[in-house]
Order: sequence, then C-alpha cells, then structure tokens
Amino acid sequence: MEYRKLKDQDKDGASAPEDVESLRGKPISAVGPVERTKWKRKSIVTLALTFLTSSQAILIVWSKRAGKYEYSVTTANFSVEALKCALSLAALARIWSNEGVTEDNRLSTTLDEVGVYPIPALLYLVKNLLQYYIFAYVDAPGYQILKNLNIISTGVLYRIILKRKLSEIQWAAFIILCAGCTTAQLNPKSDSVLQTPFQGWVMAIVMALLSGFAGVYTEAIIKKRPSRNINVQNFWLYVFGMAFNAVAIVVQDFDAVMNKGFFHGYSFITVLMILNHALSGIAVSMVMKYADNIVKVYSTSVAMLLTAVVSVFLFGFHLSLAFFLGSTVVSVAVYLHSIGKVQR
Amino acid sequence: MEYRKLKDQDKDGASAPEDVESLRGKPISAVGPVERTKWKRKSIVTLALTFLTSSQAILIVWSKRAGKYEYSVTTANFSVEALKCALSLAALARIWSNEGVTEDNRLSTTLDEVGVYPIPALLYLVKNLLQYYIFAYVDAPGYQILKNLNIISTGVLYRIILKRKLSEIQWAAFIILCAGCTTAQLNPKSDSVLQTPFQGWVMAIVMALLSGFAGVYTEAIIKKRPSRNINVQNFWLYVFGMAFNAVAIVVQDFDAVMNKGFFHGYSFITVLMILNHALSGIAVSMVMKYADNIVKVYSTSVAMLLTAVVSVFLFGFHLSLAFFLGSTVVSVAVYLHSIGKVQR
Repeated sequence: MEYRKLKDQDKDGASAPEDVESLRGKPISAVGPVERTKWKRKSIVTLALTFLTSSQAILIVWSKRAGKYEYSVTTANFSVEALKCALSLAALARIWSNEGVTEDNRLSTTLDEVGVYPIPALLYLVKNLLQYYIFAYVDAPGYQILKNLNIISTGVLYRIILKRKLSEIQWAAFIILCAGCTTAQLNPKSDSVLQTPFQGWVMAIVMALLSGFAGVYTEAIIKKRPSRNINVQNFWLYVFGMAFNAVAIVVQDFDAVMNKGFFHGYSFITVLMILNHALSGIAVSMVMKYADNIVKVYSTSVAMLLTAVVSVFLFGFHLSLAFFLGSTVVSVAVYLHSIGKVQR
Repeated sequence: MEYRKLKDQDKDGASAPEDVESLRGKPISAVGPVERTKWKRKSIVTLALTFLTSSQAILIVWSKRAGKYEYSVTTANFSVEALKCALSLAALARIWSNEGVTEDNRLSTTLDEVGVYPIPALLYLVKNLLQYYIFAYVDAPGYQILKNLNIISTGVLYRIILKRKLSEIQWAAFIILCAGCTTAQLNPKSDSVLQTPFQGWVMAIVMALLSGFAGVYTEAIIKKRPSRNINVQNFWLYVFGMAFNAVAIVVQDFDAVMNKGFFHGYSFITVLMILNHALSGIAVSMVMKYADNIVKVYSTSVAMLLTAVVSVFLFGFHLSLAFFLGSTVVSVAVYLHSIGKVQR
C-alpha cells in the first residue's frame, strides 16, 4: 500500500500531517497547541466510546427484560452497518461543502487502498462462526471468562504487528487489567472454566487471536494513511460490513425476512440499540484513528465496570466483593498505564 | 531516645554504621560490595521469612487434620517466646566469644532504651482481645477477608510514622497487593463481608491499625539504633513477649496447666509448630532490621500463595479461578514494587 503525505484535512488542520502516535510518551505540559488539540480529540473519542459501550450493555439488559428478541439479529446487524455508512456519508457531505473535494476526502479509491478493507470484517465473521462451536466445550459463564483473553491477545498483537512499544509498567498494567476485568466478572459458576478441555482452550485462544488481529489490523489500515479522512476510511470499512451481513441474512434469516418483512419485530428499543451500536462502531474507528487498540481495551474495560454500577441503580443488581476487588485492580491498571507512558 | 553512632558490629563489619534504608532506590549495579552484602542479607532474611511463614500455615492445616488442639494455646505461645529468647541468647553467646562484649552487643541496657520494648507486645495483646469481640459482627470467612486491611494500614502507618516514602508505582503496587491477596482468598462465602455492620467495620479497621502500628513501631525500635546487635534487641522484645504470655496463661489456662501440667497434650507436630513460630518470629525481626515492614507484607503475601499451591500436593486442595487471578495480581505487585524503586 502506498503512503502519501498530503495536505492535512483534519479539523485542527494547522500542522503538517503527523502520526498522532508520535506524541505518545510526551507529558502534556511539554507539547504545543496542535498536540493539545490532538490530545483533547483523543480524550473525547475515548470518553465517547466508554459512554456508548456502557450504555450498549444496559440497552441489551433492558431489551432482555422486555422479552425475547422478536426481530432477526442479522437484519439488525445489517441496519447498524447501513446506518454507519449513512452517517459517514453525511459527515463527508458536510466536509465537501465546507472544504471542497480533495485527494484526502474524496470517496473514490484505488483497489490498492481498498483491497485490505474486507479483512477485518472477514476475521470477525470467522470468529463469530467459531463462537457456535466453542459452546460444545465451554459453558456460558466459562465463555464470559475466556473472552478476557482478548485483552492479552490484543496487547501481544499490537506489539508484534503494529511494532509499538509498551513500557514495562504498561505491560504490567495490561496484565492486571486482564486479571481485574476477569475478577470483576467472577460468579459462583465461573470456576467451571478450570474444567475446560484442551480443545476449548485452543478455540478460545484462536478466537482471542482472531478478535485481537481484527482490531489491530483495522488500526493498521486506518493509520496507514494518517491524512486520509476518517469518514472515507469508515465508509469503505462499513460497505464491506454491509456486504458480509447481507450474506448472513440470506443464509440465516431468508425465510423470516421474506415472510414477515425486513423490519419485523423492531421496537423502540431495537431502534435505540441499532443507533447505539452504530455510534459505538464509529467511536471505535475514531479511537483507532486518534488513539489505539490499547486505549480501546481500557475504554471498554472501564465501560464494563460502569455498566455494572449503573445496573445497580437501574435494575437493582447486587455487586459482589469480587466486583469491588476487580474494579480496584482495573482502576490501578488505568493509573499505571497513564503514568507508565510519562516515565518511559 | 538517644541515637548513638558506634562501631558497626554487623557481620560485614567493613563500613561505618549506616542505615540500611539509605540504600533503597539505588540499582544494584551502582552500589559497592558492602551494599551488595547488605542486599544479599536482606534477600536471605526475606526468603527465610517467606519459607517459614508458608510452612507455618501448612503445619497448622496438618495439626488440624490430626485432630483438635489438645494443648493449651497460651503455653504454646509462651514456649515460642521462650525459645526465641533462648535462640537470641545462644547467638549472642557465640558473638561474645568471637568479638568480645561491646557497647552494641552487651545485654545490659538503659531504661531509656528498653522502655519502649513492651509497646508492640501490648498492642498485639489489645488486638487479640478485640478479635474475640469482632466475631459478634463478622463471620469467619468475612474476618479472613477483613484481615487484608492490615496491608493498607501497614502501608499508611509506614508512611506516617516512619516517614519513609514509597514511589507512586509502589503505592499502586501496594493497593493491588491488597486486592490480589483478597481475591486469592475469595470463596463462595466471602461475600458475607459486604453485610458487615458499621461496628464490625470500625473494629476491623481498629484491629488493622493496631496490628500495623505494632509492626511499624517494632521497626522503629529496631532501626532507632542501627549498630545495636539485633539479637540484643530481639532478646528484650521477647522477654516482654514472655511476660505478657505468662499473664495470658494465668488468666486463661491456669486450671488446665495446674491439673494436667504445662506441656500437656504436646505432640511431635506441636513441637514442630513451636519451632517454626520461633524461627518465623526471628525472621520477622531480621526483616525489620535489614529490610522493612513493606518487605514483610510482600513476603507474607507470597507465603500465603505458596501455602495454597503446596496444599494442593499435600492435602489435595483445589485452587479456584479467583486464586489464579489473585496470584497473578500479587505477582505483578511484587514486580512493580521492585521496578518502582529503581525508577524513582
């Protein structure tokens, strides 16, 4: 893939194009106004992702309380991708009318640029297929625990594929982030995971690697050309998302959609969930562009804790001692990650 | 209390007397042979404490499996103190014959020096008395969890009373050490601690402060005069330990001792436990002299994990997922504590 340095079309458009990542490791006080703007943007997208992810889980609980899913999940997934596409186009239309069409924000692309965009969607598809088979070896509470392997796989692949370094302290923080998240999710049934057979472990590790690779690969695609407008990059990512989900509709829910219609069973909460998933998806892309996969992992981990706390008030959930202990460890991990950067 | 700088009687006796603590924060490679000797001594006493503490818990399990305690616990405690006294005297006798009696290793003392020695023993006595009352508010599994507050109280009192600083990273490590130890001890009944009433929390915190204060105060006494021989300091500490335990025998087990004899019900394992407790007690004093309370906390925490692992092989215990997660967090805490020092 080519890497062209072109006029920076980012909103703060004052500086030459520069990989945001080159700012990592500098204390805020030592950087100029452009860097501050970038830091602010990074913080905003991270907070948006945290907020959207935590409300996402709450909407899922809410929809489950309201009854069974009456709609086809595949059509909802397709709608999410379509909405993300539409939102990216709307953002682009505004940019075009303000700044005109440039090399960086034009929608047309080369096969060379777009050729890698279906890969993340494909990886997620394979991972989702595996998900059906892993339940032959692991029960649901065990699977919940094993999903935290994603944290470790993301860290390792981030290091290997993106060749970015974490300091010793940041690695330590990442390990306790994984342990803390898992601790916070412990329940009396979690110990079943210790009886996972060898095949279950292999599948869980493969799934974690697929999921981590998809995330890291998306970051590589988006960061490959920093000056390229994120909305164009999103548009192409989501077009392939739509395509793969269209296949899923045909394979899984063709009859239901033919007989009852595409939007059968959609309720107000379904629409809210689709809206939330679409905005979360865009926030993930923004975090990949302006921050990185490590920030994404921290963001979604903190979101998991926020969801539990909010659920106490909304649904009368009880928090366990393990939750408090896990939250403490996750909080310390977040703190260590941030000071580990400065001391590097 | 006076602080006299006198000829260093420590075994490496090559340097002027110097507080071992002044070495903290320097990387090993940058220090001379005397510092290396001190570092080696610190490591040996720490390892000895870890080994003795973990075997201590195993002996307790073993003695429980063998049946109920047939002996009076107070006489066993007295025997431990008496044995520690005897061992300190034996060590002193050897030193006197090798080096002669000096200002630092002579047993005679001033009221000024020895006046503070009963304080730690008194604090432990008050704490042990409180222990009987806390069970009105907290059950046994809850108490097990609450005991981990000792870790936090030791850290806070270490900072306030001894005025020693921990780096940011070391504080973070200390918090996750506490969370990790608690996580490793989680069992399905631990959540009962969340129902602890206010009085129970107050008593648990008071007990943690008493225990932490006793530890930190012992360190202050022992470090007050670094050149003073540790065996003399131990002798005086243990003399008061014997005195307080003699009172406990009279109050609690007077009839049993009178009717059945002082050593009634002692078995081979009782003797082993007394020997182990005596050696552990001496190791604690050594750690206070050559390292500090923070090292002691890490040492006993790691010992707790070792005990569990060894119990798997000895007694067929099952390790829970919480144990693995807690152990991971404790290991990272140990690592962070050690690198936190160097980077300060």
